[in-house]
Amino acid sequence: MLPIVYLNGQYVPKEEAALNVADLAILRGFGIFDYFRYTQGRPRFIEDHLDRFLRSAKLLSLDMPADREALREAVHQLIQRNGGGDGGIRFVLTGGYAPDGYTPTRPNLVGMADPFQGPPPEQYETGIRVILHRYERELPEVKTINYLEGIRIQPMIRQRGAQYALYVDREENIRESDRSNFLIVRDGKLVTPTDNILHGITRLHLIKLAAELDIPVEERTVSVAEFMNAEEAIICSSVKGAMPITYADDIAIGDGKPGPITRKLMQAWPEYAARHEG
Amino acid sequence: MLPIVYLNGQYVPKEEAALNVADLAILRGFGIFDYFRYTQGRPRFIEDHLDRFLRSAKLLSLDMPADREALREAVHQLIQRNGGGDGGIRFVLTGGYAPDGYTPTRPNLVGMADPFQGPPPEQYETGIRVILHRYERELPEVKTINYLEGIRIQPMIRQRGAQYALYVDREENIRESDRSNFLIVRDGKLVTPTDNILHGITRLHLIKLAAELDIPVEERTVSVAEFMNAEEAIICSSVKGAMPITYADDIAIGDGKPGPITRKLMQAWPEYAARHEG
Repeated sequence: MLPIVYLNGQYVPKEEAALNVADLAILRGFGIFDYFRYTQGRPRFIEDHLDRFLRSAKLLSLDMPADREALREAVHQLIQRNGGGDGGIRFVLTGGYAPDGYTPTRPNLVGMADPFQGPPPEQYETGIRVILHRYERELPEVKTINYLEGIRIQPMIRQRGAQYALYVDREENIRESDRSNFLIVRDGKLVTPTDNILHGITRLHLIKLAAELDIPVEERTVSVAEFMNAEEAIICSSVKGAMPITYADDIAIGDGKPGPITRKLMQAWPEYAARHEG
Repeated sequence: MLPIVYLNGQYVPKEEAALNVADLAILRGFGIFDYFRYTQGRPRFIEDHLDRFLRSAKLLSLDMPADREALREAVHQLIQRNGGGDGGIRFVLTGGYAPDGYTPTRPNLVGMADPFQGPPPEQYETGIRVILHRYERELPEVKTINYLEGIRIQPMIRQRGAQYALYVDREENIRESDRSNFLIVRDGKLVTPTDNILHGITRLHLIKLAAELDIPVEERTVSVAEFMNAEEAIICSSVKGAMPITYADDIAIGDGKPGPITRKLMQAWPEYAARHEG
């Protein structure tokens, strides 16, 4: 009975895949996750994602109950048992069942394979509209499950006719979007923040792709003012790939259309990503 | 089969009380909670806690699936079905099962009655040791389930021989402790922060008790410097009541012993609290 979920070493129908209410994700929001796509049954950038998932666990002192080989095997089992094709793999590792409601114990490990649903295709043509929102993520370098603020502001984003938020820190720099990394084009160079961000796998590979395409890259802070005057701007994630930002509220970025460097990256991305599947 | 848990209107044995892995608390740490004690079968400050729980839900736009009357009934059922006596009630309200893994749907409501376990009694005699930790809680006024930072720093607190952390904001003021509110005594007055904090029910009632005892109270910011030079310092919560802070790392607060105003509050608290049970 599909979908099939990996739960602490077992494969169970999703409707039976549950965590007891004593789990620290439910009681205290304590957990990490990772997410990546698979196409035609082949996971994308799998080793990078396993690296990051293992690193996130270490940074929260969570004992990962499966080693890299077992995680890799779970990925392939999940894809196969859910019929192959295209989809997304999500791993979640929680603080486990805590008798005192606070202290992490043996973590619960969940793996899910869900149908892939990308953004509406027209967004790649027109670009997206963002709002600027003052927020600094806690533990930005760890892929924790904490999305309280991102979820809380969804109605506000929609109300302002936008699709995503860019997070602005106290120094008036833009660090990230609510589930994506952030880049701009400035004097023909791709510029992207690197401090106090979640180091996205798509961001990492867009930088490598830029090198292949002879687009210069600078990793440094980006101010709000610099973004508003940028030639082009992009958010990127495993779900989106590279997605052009064309408006911040009613202000056009560049000429309000996806620019030449963004287009070049979007065009080259599927072939680049396909080279990193398997 | 004890304990019995309230789960979306049903009463089930705790070992069967589970949320599907699609719940937004598990996927995205999205939820709120509240917690209060009961003694001899009588819940303490129940209406204050229901007020706050309903307010937290509203602030995160979560549709509470039970009204105040139904929540109150669930409290009394939980106490009765778990054998009365002494314990703690914990309600958790999550973002529900989200098909897209991000957008809140019909929330899941969980109610638990667990045995009460207070701090070691000697801590009220000797006072506790705290560390100072730079941290500002997200959405401080909402009782969310986000305790990532509080849980993450537990090993560091223990390593430094302390029991709790005081959170210091960027203006060098102390706002709260990791699961408690914070007060000091200064020129014979009780002083406690009021902005950007979780408004604790025990804090609220300690202020009322202070008025009964003719102890003057000031609600305003408290700097680190002021804390280090305070006559007395206290953390308070539903679990702890009023608990004296006697050391910050190796620095004594006052003379390193629970002071007279703290003692007066600790002594009067059980009778005051008992007047608000039922």
